[in-house]
Amino acid sequence: MSISHFARYRTAHAGAPAWGLVDGEVIRQLSAAPYLEHQLTGHTVPLAQATLLAPAEPPKIFAIGRNYKSHLGTRPQPTQPEVFYKPITCLQDPGGPIVLPANSTNVHYEGELVLVIGRALSHASLEEAAAGIFGVTCGNDVSDRFWQNGGEGGAGKDLQWWRAKGADTFGPCGPRLVRGLDYGNLRLTTRVNGEVVQQQTTADLLFDSATIVSYISQNVRLQPGDLIYTGTPGTTKKLAPGDTVDVEIEGIGLLVNPVVAAGL
Amino acid sequence: MSISHFARYRTAHAGAPAWGLVDGEVIRQLSAAPYLEHQLTGHTVPLAQATLLAPAEPPKIFAIGRNYKSHLGTRPQPTQPEVFYKPITCLQDPGGPIVLPANSTNVHYEGELVLVIGRALSHASLEEAAAGIFGVTCGNDVSDRFWQNGGEGGAGKDLQWWRAKGADTFGPCGPRLVRGLDYGNLRLTTRVNGEVVQQQTTADLLFDSATIVSYISQNVRLQPGDLIYTGTPGTTKKLAPGDTVDVEIEGIGLLVNPVVAAGL
Repeated sequence: MSISHFARYRTAHAGAPAWGLVDGEVIRQLSAAPYLEHQLTGHTVPLAQATLLAPAEPPKIFAIGRNYKSHLGTRPQPTQPEVFYKPITCLQDPGGPIVLPANSTNVHYEGELVLVIGRALSHASLEEAAAGIFGVTCGNDVSDRFWQNGGEGGAGKDLQWWRAKGADTFGPCGPRLVRGLDYGNLRLTTRVNGEVVQQQTTADLLFDSATIVSYISQNVRLQPGDLIYTGTPGTTKKLAPGDTVDVEIEGIGLLVNPVVAAGL
Repeated sequence: MSISHFARYRTAHAGAPAWGLVDGEVIRQLSAAPYLEHQLTGHTVPLAQATLLAPAEPPKIFAIGRNYKSHLGTRPQPTQPEVFYKPITCLQDPGGPIVLPANSTNVHYEGELVLVIGRALSHASLEEAAAGIFGVTCGNDVSDRFWQNGGEGGAGKDLQWWRAKGADTFGPCGPRLVRGLDYGNLRLTTRVNGEVVQQQTTADLLFDSATIVSYISQNVRLQPGDLIYTGTPGTTKKLAPGDTVDVEIEGIGLLVNPVVAAGL
């Protein structure tokens, strides 16, 4: 399969978001998302004149915890993919702000490879799962560590990670949806204000993409467009207003988001 | 406000689901969900000829844990609503089967009052939250206790409740969406094979509907059509293939679902 780059975008002239195929310096508009039935509309727009949006209109968003050995610390290695949900309202566009909620105290970046599902999958084999992944993009599974883990001995933590991982703007992804790339061994790099804070290859995922997709589909059916954030490597640090976070994956692209305080 | 009953339904003649206003023994078709901009289409169908579907097309589904004192057992009373997500793929229609997954071991019913959100809400006050609830329906927050809690000392439990609460068919709701009813003190009854297994008034909710909605909206924005399962009272038991579960809330209706084994 040759490599294709897709984008979701808005232009100053047309307010409604559209999907398109990135072809060098132009975007060729599609009639629908590339993982749905679609055709070229014949419209084109210069890439430089388009504002790229999160390349995703997911029915659901999954994420995987504890999926790199380097991120485990003293926690045991999981014996199965540890899945959780992010709400679709947490999506954020490339360049859009990560807003630190007024009631949050310890918000961290998590650079991740994100899978985009291409077809309905239920009880999928590893082969069906691999074939059902339409493409990949870069993502940031932004997380408030107090809501997630609490203080001393877990005191004060939420029962589940609904806002720790799901507050508005906690799910940036993009800038492009890339299809046809072998994403089994790509270098993932996260930078805060230009300084490298995470770097690892996707070959180090404890559960690889096909395993994750097959595993989820045994109990929860996957739909075209569903996203799966595959987990973050290494250690993470607290973000502050004014920071800029980059998540870069070789061959996929560079996702940049500024960090701002709520209400500003 | 007078009380209105809405249904989502299918007929033998028209395969596509439609929304309608239930008016005695007929359903008056609507052009869209009642919580969106809509009008009467002029079409009607006898209620008896319609198959009622889950009265919901939610962007997101929230649920609340530990929200009745009678359900807490030895667990401490929460100091805030304990929120989690159910995936939209777990919805099941009235009359549709609750399928026990092949890899599940201990699946329980949870009869609940379900809120349907009527408008976009972000940082809502209690008043705005109350006004933003479009209506209510009956729901069953079906739960696998092993995936949720594990065995002795929590051994073997999933890190998060993604499949414990989210496996396909684990979210029946319906049969009607009721608007204009005071749902602050309604008797909720769950029956298994006709025997009452849960019975309590919604007045006993630890966090009431407006408090839940306002609380969620401080961090995760609500969208029209979002569902919130408000929590279950009392104790629950394991379901077996061949069981029938009723969730009945006075003034709202009776939700009936059979239980079947996977693959049958």
